Amino acid sequence: MATITKVSPLAPAAFPKLPVIDGVRFATVEAGVRYQGRTDVMLAVLQPGTSVAGVFTRSATRAAPVLDCQEKIGGASDGPAAILVNSGNANAFTGHYGQASVAAVTQAVADVTGVAVERVFTSSTGVIGEPLAHDRILAQLDALNGALSGDAIEDAARAIMTTDTFPKGASAQVEIDGQTVSIAGIAKGSGMIAPDMATMLVYIFTDAKVEQSALQAMLSSQTDTSFNCITVDSDTSTSDSLLLCATGASGVDATGNTTFADALNGVMLDLAHQVVRDGEGATKFVEIRVTGATSDADAKVHGLAIANSPLIKTAVAGEDPNWGRVVMAIGKSGAAADRDKLSISFGDILVAENGWVSPTYSEDEAAAYMKGQELVIGVDLGLGDGRSTVWTCDLTHGYIEINADYRS
Amino acid sequence: MATITKVSPLAPAAFPKLPVIDGVRFATVEAGVRYQGRTDVMLAVLQPGTSVAGVFTRSATRAAPVLDCQEKIGGASDGPAAILVNSGNANAFTGHYGQASVAAVTQAVADVTGVAVERVFTSSTGVIGEPLAHDRILAQLDALNGALSGDAIEDAARAIMTTDTFPKGASAQVEIDGQTVSIAGIAKGSGMIAPDMATMLVYIFTDAKVEQSALQAMLSSQTDTSFNCITVDSDTSTSDSLLLCATGASGVDATGNTTFADALNGVMLDLAHQVVRDGEGATKFVEIRVTGATSDADAKVHGLAIANSPLIKTAVAGEDPNWGRVVMAIGKSGAAADRDKLSISFGDILVAENGWVSPTYSEDEAAAYMKGQELVIGVDLGLGDGRSTVWTCDLTHGYIEINADYRS
Repeated sequence: MATITKVSPLAPAAFPKLPVIDGVRFATVEAGVRYQGRTDVMLAVLQPGTSVAGVFTRSATRAAPVLDCQEKIGGASDGPAAILVNSGNANAFTGHYGQASVAAVTQAVADVTGVAVERVFTSSTGVIGEPLAHDRILAQLDALNGALSGDAIEDAARAIMTTDTFPKGASAQVEIDGQTVSIAGIAKGSGMIAPDMATMLVYIFTDAKVEQSALQAMLSSQTDTSFNCITVDSDTSTSDSLLLCATGASGVDATGNTTFADALNGVMLDLAHQVVRDGEGATKFVEIRVTGATSDADAKVHGLAIANSPLIKTAVAGEDPNWGRVVMAIGKSGAAADRDKLSISFGDILVAENGWVSPTYSEDEAAAYMKGQELVIGVDLGLGDGRSTVWTCDLTHGYIEINADYRS
Repeated sequence: MATITKVSPLAPAAFPKLPVIDGVRFATVEAGVRYQGRTDVMLAVLQPGTSVAGVFTRSATRAAPVLDCQEKIGGASDGPAAILVNSGNANAFTGHYGQASVAAVTQAVADVTGVAVERVFTSSTGVIGEPLAHDRILAQLDALNGALSGDAIEDAARAIMTTDTFPKGASAQVEIDGQTVSIAGIAKGSGMIAPDMATMLVYIFTDAKVEQSALQAMLSSQTDTSFNCITVDSDTSTSDSLLLCATGASGVDATGNTTFADALNGVMLDLAHQVVRDGEGATKFVEIRVTGATSDADAKVHGLAIANSPLIKTAVAGEDPNWGRVVMAIGKSGAAADRDKLSISFGDILVAENGWVSPTYSEDEAAAYMKGQELVIGVDLGLGDGRSTVWTCDLTHGYIEINADYRS
């Protein structure tokens, strides 16, 4: 891992104050899996009856803990559940040894916490291809179990970081039937971030009561417009996992409740944006709004073509309103476009329309806009009602430094 | 355009000695379209009966000259033909003005050279979205026509450069029926280079006689395994064009001749590799050999996923044998892969097999290999007979400097 200590200029001022979620307790520890002098393992234990939904990377080379989680999601929800995450080592592409590590860790967590092994979910994040020193984790399980606390979610957010420069958290509270329901989530992710394959490591907790299959449906649908709409570098991790846990401790059934769904969506978008704001080397946060496409799916293809274009990402880094490169990305995306119906804007500035530069366009005005830290690139295809919004960051020397100049 | 003057470390020692192709004459001029103090327009005039085949970008926002060429390819081949190329301005996304520029230039070339306008092909390369100052080109046409010479192909290669750091040429001579047939080609390209959409600007000439439809079939098929197998930055130009012109001046009919096809393939691969060697900021030339895939198409998907991965390209730049990132790219590509049947090698060094690091793997040995300037990444999927080879370069601070630090 690169030893980058400078916090992203796009980071929030501080970690947000997250509500305690009844029915979840956290503990963290310095197990020394790979990093020294920081916490690197977190354990969360969830009360009996908690519904657990998950989405995972679709990578064909996904890691052993991912495969194990996928097998377990959707099983019986009666008893308690547990989540154990280590940073520093991804336990990915480690063959049978990797499966053995997952088996050892999940069984040991089950033994120490009293959770059935079928309800123990694990994630590993860090270097690919090296065996996981799981004995170091096992040695800390008693200490972890003894330290569980409802108020330690920020510690958990810190323990799962790899090249992240800040811990990521978000929350929402909504009234349902006169009662307060809370949602709190944490995430890690900075590089190897690409959409359409689930996401980084994300854990979201709520005290709402939602039946598992309804929770899973809600999660899968919202992932498509949040985590699946961000990209840092077009590269997809072997370990991406998102778990959503509904403890039901509030006693409020939120199944099918749109207020709850909207609040959850807000938390997921907030965490997804924080991952982009911590994109390796990022200095600009870019929202790409595509409208007028023949379908939502086509709009997303255009949005991602723009968001993943190295030439656009470097132009943004250079504060260059290089709209010709936006035309290029739309052209190459493969989705429907008509050069002469296209319009492009930077913020409120109309740059191009009807197949050429707008008569009102001022290069000086656009160049001034590009100096901002939060940018919006708008594209209207002029073909239909399809729309999609995608988020990304710029491509800077910082990305090269993190991934080339240092030995990972 | 960035004013990068340092020649790529991967450049050939010198421009190659190219054979004169009977039936083609070249001229170049300083028209001052955008650049000052260098040639920026080239004219080639081809003898009557020359067959002209072409492949072009599939970009949905392709430039006016590309659309004009596509309409003309495959028409009558009786009379002479002409090719006019300017650098500095791509005449792309310039609306009706762009079409008017193409009409003005092609008609003026026809008037000056006596070539029918249906046989005048033009290309423009450079900035997107600015009107082409075509009057500057028209003003030089008499001078160009008066300076035509069979021995000026190197001058032509220089006149079409944009961010290129060296002119690109390649040739072959083969014996057919006891007679010598020659092929010579030139290319430009350095950034906005991605495959599957034809290529940069490339012009290849031969004195062989090949009927137009046969020439077109040969060109299209060979493009798939040469120019469509290279990538610098995954971004596809709006102006990519490749024209192949067979003058027939040797009197040798090479239609269906495999010796000729192989020689042409060698010239195309050589030019394609030179484009990668001049990739913006490139310091390493990387060949990615994928075998054992379920199909050739799947092998190419894997190869391009590896070649376009920013994490792999930065690892190569950092001389880091980070094979875990190769696993990641295979996993994300979408093509068939089985983690536990995969093997990966760097040069002759077997890195991983059977889903984990090879027992013979030495990190020191691999790190020493990565210090080389010419690298081979081998991937065997262990699934079938599908194979593909793809070429790319590394992603360095130089790419960011060219595309972000300078104003284009």
